[in-house]
Amino acid sequence: MIVEMNKGASDEQVEHVVERAHSYGFEVQLNLGTEKTVVAILGGNTGKVQTDVFAVLPGVESVTRVMKPYKLASREFHPRASKVNVSGVEIGGQRVVVMAGPCAVESEEQLMETAKGVRECGASIVRGGAFKPRTSPFSFQGLEEDGLKLLSKVKTDLGMPVITEVLDTPHIKIIAEHADILQVGARNMQNFALLKELSKLRHPILLKRGLSATVAEWLTAADYLLAEGNRRVILCERGIRTFEDSVRFSLDISSISVIKHISHLPIIVDPSHAAGHFAYVPSIAKAAIAAGADGLLIEVHPNPEEALVDSLQALTIPNFERLMAELRPIAEAVGRYI
Amino acid sequence: MIVEMNKGASDEQVEHVVERAHSYGFEVQLNLGTEKTVVAILGGNTGKVQTDVFAVLPGVESVTRVMKPYKLASREFHPRASKVNVSGVEIGGQRVVVMAGPCAVESEEQLMETAKGVRECGASIVRGGAFKPRTSPFSFQGLEEDGLKLLSKVKTDLGMPVITEVLDTPHIKIIAEHADILQVGARNMQNFALLKELSKLRHPILLKRGLSATVAEWLTAADYLLAEGNRRVILCERGIRTFEDSVRFSLDISSISVIKHISHLPIIVDPSHAAGHFAYVPSIAKAAIAAGADGLLIEVHPNPEEALVDSLQALTIPNFERLMAELRPIAEAVGRYI
Amino acid sequence: MIVEMNKGASDEQVEHVVERAHSYGFEVQLNLGTEKTVVAILGGNTGKVQTDVFAVLPGVESVTRVMKPYKLASREFHPRASKVNVSGVEIGGQRVVVMAGPCAVESEEQLMETAKGVRECGASIVRGGAFKPRTSPFSFQGLEEDGLKLLSKVKTDLGMPVITEVLDTPHIKIIAEHADILQVGARNMQNFALLKELSKLRHPILLKRGLSATVAEWLTAADYLLAEGNRRVILCERGIRTFEDSVRFSLDISSISVIKHISHLPIIVDPSHAAGHFAYVPSIAKAAIAAGADGLLIEVHPNPEEALVDSLQALTIPNFERLMAELRPIAEAVGRYI
Amino acid sequence: MIVEMNKGASDEQVEHVVERAHSYGFEVQLNLGTEKTVVAILGGNTGKVQTDVFAVLPGVESVTRVMKPYKLASREFHPRASKVNVSGVEIGGQRVVVMAGPCAVESEEQLMETAKGVRECGASIVRGGAFKPRTSPFSFQGLEEDGLKLLSKVKTDLGMPVITEVLDTPHIKIIAEHADILQVGARNMQNFALLKELSKLRHPILLKRGLSATVAEWLTAADYLLAEGNRRVILCERGIRTFEDSVRFSLDISSISVIKHISHLPIIVDPSHAAGHFAYVPSIAKAAIAAGADGLLIEVHPNPEEALVDSLQALTIPNFERLMAELRPIAEAVGRYI
Repeated sequence: MIVEMNKGASDEQVEHVVERAHSYGFEVQLNLGTEKTVVAILGGNTGKVQTDVFAVLPGVESVTRVMKPYKLASREFHPRASKVNVSGVEIGGQRVVVMAGPCAVESEEQLMETAKGVRECGASIVRGGAFKPRTSPFSFQGLEEDGLKLLSKVKTDLGMPVITEVLDTPHIKIIAEHADILQVGARNMQNFALLKELSKLRHPILLKRGLSATVAEWLTAADYLLAEGNRRVILCERGIRTFEDSVRFSLDISSISVIKHISHLPIIVDPSHAAGHFAYVPSIAKAAIAAGADGLLIEVHPNPEEALVDSLQALTIPNFERLMAELRPIAEAVGRYI
Repeated sequence: MIVEMNKGASDEQVEHVVERAHSYGFEVQLNLGTEKTVVAILGGNTGKVQTDVFAVLPGVESVTRVMKPYKLASREFHPRASKVNVSGVEIGGQRVVVMAGPCAVESEEQLMETAKGVRECGASIVRGGAFKPRTSPFSFQGLEEDGLKLLSKVKTDLGMPVITEVLDTPHIKIIAEHADILQVGARNMQNFALLKELSKLRHPILLKRGLSATVAEWLTAADYLLAEGNRRVILCERGIRTFEDSVRFSLDISSISVIKHISHLPIIVDPSHAAGHFAYVPSIAKAAIAAGADGLLIEVHPNPEEALVDSLQALTIPNFERLMAELRPIAEAVGRYI
Repeated sequence: MIVEMNKGASDEQVEHVVERAHSYGFEVQLNLGTEKTVVAILGGNTGKVQTDVFAVLPGVESVTRVMKPYKLASREFHPRASKVNVSGVEIGGQRVVVMAGPCAVESEEQLMETAKGVRECGASIVRGGAFKPRTSPFSFQGLEEDGLKLLSKVKTDLGMPVITEVLDTPHIKIIAEHADILQVGARNMQNFALLKELSKLRHPILLKRGLSATVAEWLTAADYLLAEGNRRVILCERGIRTFEDSVRFSLDISSISVIKHISHLPIIVDPSHAAGHFAYVPSIAKAAIAAGADGLLIEVHPNPEEALVDSLQALTIPNFERLMAELRPIAEAVGRYI
Repeated sequence: MIVEMNKGASDEQVEHVVERAHSYGFEVQLNLGTEKTVVAILGGNTGKVQTDVFAVLPGVESVTRVMKPYKLASREFHPRASKVNVSGVEIGGQRVVVMAGPCAVESEEQLMETAKGVRECGASIVRGGAFKPRTSPFSFQGLEEDGLKLLSKVKTDLGMPVITEVLDTPHIKIIAEHADILQVGARNMQNFALLKELSKLRHPILLKRGLSATVAEWLTAADYLLAEGNRRVILCERGIRTFEDSVRFSLDISSISVIKHISHLPIIVDPSHAAGHFAYVPSIAKAAIAAGADGLLIEVHPNPEEALVDSLQALTIPNFERLMAELRPIAEAVGRYI
């Protein structure tokens, strides 16, 4: 950490900073500039201490981190890219993994028709919400446990791994019995109680980026999941909140290469929730693969007009088929395959 | 809802929209413009239906809400301003209610010293976190149940109501035994599982605005809390995420008058988490009262240098005393008192 | 426009709205809902009138546009995609056009070395700033007229069209003598005096998106350029301001498909200013082409360490060569070529 | 500046950083941490150099500023608060200065009626736009020179100073002949050509904050105005662009105390353009004064229904009178007067 003292800070004030650094076991080096003193606080664990610890001291103007606030998710900690194996499907390898399915599980027919459809087009994992986070209490809230059972049936009948969202700690146990990947939604990225409980599992966890989370905050949330030894964490960029209103969320395309530089975790992209409209999904999906994403999470519904949730962003099965055909040459152009 | 058809939409497409509206029991009126047809969909419950239901139909260009997505929190639903009684302290009345205390409960001495100090200065409710939502898993996570007991002691010994945060559904029961107000933090504003469980209580609930929640989304989250008949919901503006980095969050001062226009719920302001720095707290606190806020939630610590959490934003007790003296004439200037 | 009246608005208030609509020559249709009256105001020119004209009337709750605020830039106005011919290079056709060169023209050697380098790699237009918009008055402000002459020399010697930025109306004349494309920078997107003067030219104009401009505002700014009959307008997405700080600006990848849907103008992407760091430029450039962009604007410098402006985002010539090799198969994967 | 080297950066790479620092005349101090080397670059002028100069060097991970990018506008440079005298009206003193008038000058009657009305209520400066920056080319663009003459007439007849906006460098001369304060609009805050020309005047300049400008960028733009010796610069907070859509812009209330801490320049607030709706103007205006603003810029129109520009945000004269009566006790509560 770099502590910049005020112009005119006293020697006692500088000494106070030094003592506090020593109390944490950190080394200190003083930089006596012509106008200001700058104290460098050094040590491998400075990332674990809040900057406030120094900023609150008298005579301090500002404190800047050098060590990142996250550690376990960083590439410095784990230089090689991690791959996450999901019941035989590898995420983070050469294959671009496509997870597809309806926003919400609505019925056996709907789920099975979609799952078969997307499998034929080349998707390798089925998505479907059983517990749904809805902005309004008057909206359909999901089939809950019945939905989980339908997902299990897909898994058994079609041999495809399934991913579904977990909203609350008491549901973790039952969801873990049915799902191959447990998904933490954007609105729960900093639901720390949920993250802590999930960190005790050994299942793959998909961590969606919060609507207003910086990349650094996202990786710090990933540290919660990694803290108990689970290494199977997958990141999912799904758009951030900005002032632009032609789409639901602005997909942060640069986060893909930033994550690849600073983290070892695989990253996939959800173009459906970002766009909020099926017409914009293909363009974003193609961009994601070209940018280096390890996979996609796409909403598909056999009959979007009748979908109970987020119908506007779902692709029909023929539209999904067309998109998959367009994605293949792009994956090849970046040295991968679908 | 107003459904705008594409230029050149067919009569069949318009008819399809009309049929769908009828299937929900809505009335319809067609507006045949020179360039486009516009379908007005009318009825008191249109706010409960997603716009996607119509947007997904062929030939539709856009759908605009007329009815708001929230209902129970709206002033149309409940024209008179609501007041929330918290163990004898009324929020939303003529008195500006100040809640103050440490970010985290650290020890009996710390909590008791702070509570006595803020009471002497005129605060009427004590705040203190027992379960702490921390962005990093390496940070202090709160005293948990021991912290709750200390809050209960303050309540008994000093006769002051207490407010504390609830992070997870399994904690609700025990927190409800100790706290007068249960606080939902910004990062949990759309933790719908938590909101649903809380809606079953009859305790006052303080709902902080999410970091990237619009006012409309905030009121829709309040609808979750109001849906089971609990009427004691208090809103708390605490700053939103923007590009500005001189403060932690940008306090949305206009939300106060917007909420007063469109909602009946009382609204208080947390200047501490918005500013992130004690030096900026007084200016924001004064602005909040002048703008019409019903109260303040302020962090105070007897010795911020030693605080375990967010030390930079805490006021010392003498600084809090000075602020309270500055706030009184402003409250009077807007026809209220502290 | 759709005018929603307050619950309880009087007949006189509704009548007042109707009269005002008639005074503009618009048609009106009343929608008498159970709770509220909604007035639809119809006519091809409603997009040219501010919503305030109705919102200010007593009894009005809200006003929503149906017609867009922009017209000339819209696809409804001009259904076929426009192509812009720049001295023989077509932008918006099947070829993805790459414009490359230094941020600022620094010397004849620097400019000529870069221009030759990027031409060999396949770039077809040379970029270079002569008048530089710098956030600090203490920074290098460009070679000004001498820089323009060097650009003209490149044009003559290498036969490549050149693009350069115009900052101020008095410079337009001289820049138009030297440049093939005049660029309006992001910070001037709503410098309406500049836009109005530029609309009188018949040169191609590149209009960068403003840092905080919505897509609709961007197209409305384009309407200024199109208003006097110049049809040669090219849009350039260069990132918007968000809370994310790992890059300088967040490139809005979805704007590409949104623009392709609602506008006929060609759109290119500037990955260099968005990323702010050379390491992130290739990933964004690849994504842009996959998403459907018509071209790229990339900063290249023979020796970034010595660049006078924005050195961190410039690619070296070998790095640019590598990027061009990576871009070609992606262009082919989307049915285009470079 | 603090240069953080990569883990594993070589001695040559560190040496390269040191040499570059020396080449600028800066001092250097090395901090050899256990994991990383950190180079502190010291000297009073480091704020004038781009961080890129070091960030581009091999082995560098990040560069952080200690000196701010702005200098002349900083309180470190000029510790006492500046007061700006405008034809006898002092801005930045104990009096809260209210500037009021129509968005656009429309006619002599309209301007004179408004000016007399606001003077009677206690405003001391008249505002009115002659050259109007309009987002759409189809909107009313202002009376231009005729508008300036009307402003001069007000000045002569009523003895009130006037403020009007300048959009383009060729207009500066004529506007400077008529106006007491020249206003730079939000969309021109980084129109550097305009700022440079204005810096040659000795008139007071009001610099509105850009829609997406950080406080640091705003002060750096102010440095342009101060660079040639003009000291009469007034800042104006007018709201920033965020995701919130219930108002036009989110007024950044914290910017007032931030500016008071880090700059010596006076700051006023424009609640009208932030709110975009007259109903929200009073609450924001009151908050601004309580927060410590030195003045207000408010839109008033004798008949908003007939206003040609931004009619929804204008106060009627009776509403302005009521607001002024409400503002007086708040000004007194913070030790000032109106």
